[in-house]
Amino acid sequence: MSMNSFGHLFRVTTWGESHGPALGATVDGCPPNVPLEPEMLQQWLDKRRPGQNKNTTQRNEPDAVKILSGVFDGMSTGTPIQLMIENTDQRSKDYGEISQTFRPGHADITYFQKYGNRDYRGGGRSSARETAARVAAGGVAREAIKALVPGLEIKGYMTRMGELEIDRSRFDWDAIDQNDFWIPDAGAVQEWEDYLQALRKDHDSVGAVVEVVARGVPAGIGAPVYGKLDTDLAAAMMSINAVKGVEIGEGMNAARLKGSENADEIFMGENGPEYSSNHAGGILGGISTGQDVVVRFAVKPTSSILTPRKSIRKDGSATEVITKGRHDPCVGIRAVPVAEAMMACVVLDHLLLHRGQIGENQGRVG
Amino acid sequence: MSMNSFGHLFRVTTWGESHGPALGATVDGCPPNVPLEPEMLQQWLDKRRPGQNKNTTQRNEPDAVKILSGVFDGMSTGTPIQLMIENTDQRSKDYGEISQTFRPGHADITYFQKYGNRDYRGGGRSSARETAARVAAGGVAREAIKALVPGLEIKGYMTRMGELEIDRSRFDWDAIDQNDFWIPDAGAVQEWEDYLQALRKDHDSVGAVVEVVARGVPAGIGAPVYGKLDTDLAAAMMSINAVKGVEIGEGMNAARLKGSENADEIFMGENGPEYSSNHAGGILGGISTGQDVVVRFAVKPTSSILTPRKSIRKDGSATEVITKGRHDPCVGIRAVPVAEAMMACVVLDHLLLHRGQIGENQGRVG
Amino acid sequence: MSMNSFGHLFRVTTWGESHGPALGATVDGCPPNVPLEPEMLQQWLDKRRPGQNKNTTQRNEPDAVKILSGVFDGMSTGTPIQLMIENTDQRSKDYGEISQTFRPGHADITYFQKYGNRDYRGGGRSSARETAARVAAGGVAREAIKALVPGLEIKGYMTRMGELEIDRSRFDWDAIDQNDFWIPDAGAVQEWEDYLQALRKDHDSVGAVVEVVARGVPAGIGAPVYGKLDTDLAAAMMSINAVKGVEIGEGMNAARLKGSENADEIFMGENGPEYSSNHAGGILGGISTGQDVVVRFAVKPTSSILTPRKSIRKDGSATEVITKGRHDPCVGIRAVPVAEAMMACVVLDHLLLHRGQIGENQGRVG
Amino acid sequence: MSMNSFGHLFRVTTWGESHGPALGATVDGCPPNVPLEPEMLQQWLDKRRPGQNKNTTQRNEPDAVKILSGVFDGMSTGTPIQLMIENTDQRSKDYGEISQTFRPGHADITYFQKYGNRDYRGGGRSSARETAARVAAGGVAREAIKALVPGLEIKGYMTRMGELEIDRSRFDWDAIDQNDFWIPDAGAVQEWEDYLQALRKDHDSVGAVVEVVARGVPAGIGAPVYGKLDTDLAAAMMSINAVKGVEIGEGMNAARLKGSENADEIFMGENGPEYSSNHAGGILGGISTGQDVVVRFAVKPTSSILTPRKSIRKDGSATEVITKGRHDPCVGIRAVPVAEAMMACVVLDHLLLHRGQIGENQGRVG
Repeated sequence: MSMNSFGHLFRVTTWGESHGPALGATVDGCPPNVPLEPEMLQQWLDKRRPGQNKNTTQRNEPDAVKILSGVFDGMSTGTPIQLMIENTDQRSKDYGEISQTFRPGHADITYFQKYGNRDYRGGGRSSARETAARVAAGGVAREAIKALVPGLEIKGYMTRMGELEIDRSRFDWDAIDQNDFWIPDAGAVQEWEDYLQALRKDHDSVGAVVEVVARGVPAGIGAPVYGKLDTDLAAAMMSINAVKGVEIGEGMNAARLKGSENADEIFMGENGPEYSSNHAGGILGGISTGQDVVVRFAVKPTSSILTPRKSIRKDGSATEVITKGRHDPCVGIRAVPVAEAMMACVVLDHLLLHRGQIGENQGRVG
Repeated sequence: MSMNSFGHLFRVTTWGESHGPALGATVDGCPPNVPLEPEMLQQWLDKRRPGQNKNTTQRNEPDAVKILSGVFDGMSTGTPIQLMIENTDQRSKDYGEISQTFRPGHADITYFQKYGNRDYRGGGRSSARETAARVAAGGVAREAIKALVPGLEIKGYMTRMGELEIDRSRFDWDAIDQNDFWIPDAGAVQEWEDYLQALRKDHDSVGAVVEVVARGVPAGIGAPVYGKLDTDLAAAMMSINAVKGVEIGEGMNAARLKGSENADEIFMGENGPEYSSNHAGGILGGISTGQDVVVRFAVKPTSSILTPRKSIRKDGSATEVITKGRHDPCVGIRAVPVAEAMMACVVLDHLLLHRGQIGENQGRVG
Repeated sequence: MSMNSFGHLFRVTTWGESHGPALGATVDGCPPNVPLEPEMLQQWLDKRRPGQNKNTTQRNEPDAVKILSGVFDGMSTGTPIQLMIENTDQRSKDYGEISQTFRPGHADITYFQKYGNRDYRGGGRSSARETAARVAAGGVAREAIKALVPGLEIKGYMTRMGELEIDRSRFDWDAIDQNDFWIPDAGAVQEWEDYLQALRKDHDSVGAVVEVVARGVPAGIGAPVYGKLDTDLAAAMMSINAVKGVEIGEGMNAARLKGSENADEIFMGENGPEYSSNHAGGILGGISTGQDVVVRFAVKPTSSILTPRKSIRKDGSATEVITKGRHDPCVGIRAVPVAEAMMACVVLDHLLLHRGQIGENQGRVG
Repeated sequence: MSMNSFGHLFRVTTWGESHGPALGATVDGCPPNVPLEPEMLQQWLDKRRPGQNKNTTQRNEPDAVKILSGVFDGMSTGTPIQLMIENTDQRSKDYGEISQTFRPGHADITYFQKYGNRDYRGGGRSSARETAARVAAGGVAREAIKALVPGLEIKGYMTRMGELEIDRSRFDWDAIDQNDFWIPDAGAVQEWEDYLQALRKDHDSVGAVVEVVARGVPAGIGAPVYGKLDTDLAAAMMSINAVKGVEIGEGMNAARLKGSENADEIFMGENGPEYSSNHAGGILGGISTGQDVVVRFAVKPTSSILTPRKSIRKDGSATEVITKGRHDPCVGIRAVPVAEAMMACVVLDHLLLHRGQIGENQGRVG
């Protein structure tokens, strides 16, 4: 019942702080005989890695992942896979002055109130660096999924950054990997860059919406009531730093719809049931329909900004806080590979859970 | 690792189908010596109960809860509490015709695709009747909370029904319990009633947004990373039937804000830290701040409507579906007591978890 | 993380007290489409039932099990199965006088020290009546196993009662079900009966050893380190009331052996590997070998005896305790069906876990 | 639900293989503000370390533990503690020849049958080297216990090695730490050494019994039914490599006793209830009595011996196996610190669980 673990059969426990010697993920329950080399995981870490482009923090971490166990001769053995990422560029002097101060909008104060102590170096355990471990674990999940359901594809992208929103009529799946914002519209990239640079100059930050899609998920995975596919996805996304809202399919907008508008009508296609629309986001009653599984979440603007904000010190005295250091003006950008990783972990977990309870057989329509 | 269980130390497992002999909740981990009588739970079930007023389904179930174990001489013993609600008004003939048909927007098809069978009577396990068991369990959680943190208050209310939204400038906490919609504005009730009656006449349904607040939660409960207070709340709410989006504090709107707008500034008050605002919804880094914990979720419009919708039968043949039977035009209304119950379960669970790991001591500011 | 639950994917939570209105088991994770009728469970409850013969307690409970959920049209649906057994013959007046007294060797004192209260009626939650719920759940597991691994057989029997031990040279598998002691030797039954009647006359009780065998378990189920098949079996058996020791295969005697004596040599048989012996009890490194899985445990003599024993009252004052009421002179007899039920639950759970992580494929020798 | 995790609130997940780059333990749920330095853990690893004396394997591993996370300024923070032990002296050439052969009495064959692969270097995950990680985690548990219950003492010792058994009339608690066998009788050490050297010359090995005692455990920890203190202890010990039997208190011998002999009579002492004897091993109904908690287990003789044994190869062909390499003639010796570590983990876990559900209050006798 570890508070730092996620998943049922495919179970990921992350560990480590921003400025400790290392961080990582202990991954248990991976099927055996999945090909696994560090490079397969490294590609996703490189996507998340800070210092990559001018839109993200300039902290320079190679984020090189080492596989310490659970892999032999290039294949998973079925035993726990330990993934370790050593911290190299820690520059903890940047953070020293905040050891007595609570940054507004940060977990500084709540960690202290809970534990009576805190590792103030770079936010310690509450740092977004923890998500590097998720990305590594997600890389394992992706390889395992490949072996189970060839063709299953997972892709994340931004749909909003502050005032800017994508134009869905120009949605281009192939453009996503071609730009630093992971937006599905090559034509909008310049506008997004200009917006972000202006924010940076203002010493401010901004929120974002990230959407992540799993395409090719077979119908029938998930479970009723508390082990719902959407329940686990909501938990997965809400557990990412700075996330304040999670939506499945129509999301919050479902509240505005009528029943006659919202229900996706069903037709019989060549390979099984098909739907006229996907308001449901690929999930009905907690179980996948075979349509795209669509999850969306909002990331709040980081509170690590150079604009001074009122706060207090540990002793209760008033102060003003400016967060120096190297921070992203929009953490939503780097949340994209994290979202993909969480989606991969949840989908794999439910594939295994389904196989465990039910095996290969399931109800066939038509 | 039951897919029908929720919670860590305070653990609720629900069971039962819409038209079986009974349904209920197995509640484990309740502290001992909590006063518990059936009436303490019944009051919340009565709030959720169908057939109460003209705005909800006319199915008439007394929803009388029985305590079968875990209580002796009117006090919890610390052993599992079995809560049973017998089904009486089942009228399963209403549903017979849909045994071969999948209703659009319902879990009929995915349950069949997963399990290769389904209890089609009233939706079986996917029926919203399952939430009666949650409400009963939530009643236990409320009594246990009362013993641990006197004065902690949990209240849910609707903030939107289709096109109607509450006017927050007229927010009246005391009005909530005085109307059938649980809205915090007595002056708006008539408008909401008229809107719902028009929908009913149109044989349609509509979605809703429910907000639930826990007031008086001590600072410091929750945990980092996967056992976050907001992660568990997101899972709790998303697990309720028909929920498609969950928000904490600012929610999806956080994506539009700048860092300078979003961070809640901190001041020292008489009894500890205070905040200039509550964009965070009472949670920072997964841990409570001591402010109101604010959760909001969207419920989709029920797909059980009299308007015909295209679908298929089990054999793949095309059909049109009209759902007769007794259904709520806005299931959001009855989701209010369910949301309160889930909030109570999560808050109690985290109070116990905190005490387990850390005891009574925690970091004191000032 | 319920303290009253057992199992990973096939998860059983029992609830209820000896003299409450009912007790039962909430069974989650059962595969769907398993034929299930109450009679299939009742047969095992009848085997465990008190009042059956002159060797067990005279409390007369029909122990009629009701299936309240999770079964539709005679088949499991894959959703939680609620099994309820109502208490009818409670005669709680027998127990009234012990409400202030702690019986030596009983959980009376520790329950009170833990919870600050206790349901003293018949031992409340600590009563062996709880095992009726396990037997019902084990019946579900047996039916699910039948569908997964036809021919897998589970049988328990006594090997010792006090000074009497079975003669393994006379071991007769078919005799087990033919006598009230479940011993594999028809010729010894009269001696065992005489021994027990003498004990009863002496107002005393005696311990026992029960052995339970699973025959036909496929090689490869189980898991390393903490989810070992033998770890889960040890926990399963130790969790039964009054059990003080658990052995796998050679058990405690392994301490006396040399490596050259203990290792089971391996040969290639027609259908796979075969072994010269089974010191290992069918488990190596936590994983089944395909041989008989052999578990053995000791049950202490019940402390509910008519012989007076020194003790104290709740207020600390000294007293002497005689336990009237209806009690078994050897609770080991009724532990046999309980042991079988626990074996069935563990084996099914590991069959499902194996399928979840690994599917149908596994390493084939030869 | 990791198969490589142990514990409820204090949760240990071990990872790593005998000949991989490293192994370790991910420890979650440790209370914050526990003083933790590597040396506090190293002392226990040194006790378990091979190559220490002539009675154990000559593999020379420094077993130096590194703390990678969860500790800041010498204190636990309450977040996951990653403990890593790098493998240095791997000499994997010793093992190469067994990559195609299954050693009798080893997990070689079952791992292959389960996973379809295996890391054959030194037994991979099934190696007793995994227990080094447990010992490190147990060191953390000991420090946390110290902060919670000062004076609680945990000590393990051998009571049997093959034909030799300790003489309980000469039991000397203080002698345990003074000899290489951890036996409570200085006078017997020479005899044990001679016996072991004779075995080594015979190229054989032998089993052992280890007993571990927790003294000073407060009354009231544990829980009924499946989360019993004895259930968790049985699982903890049975999960150790080569363990084939576990006993609590009187253990298997309870089967030979009468109720009048077995029940521990209760008296009122100055500081609470006292008992005339401790047949129960400090646990009644799964809950501690306040007496010594006494657990005993048997370790089988290692099958890694130089005496040739019949076996088969992966292709099914017959062969004879001699295990060269560096192995302990009696692995029971090194099981002592492992047993202590598991006891520490279980006791701490139940201290936290008790505090979580019940707080500091409990029932007071007298």
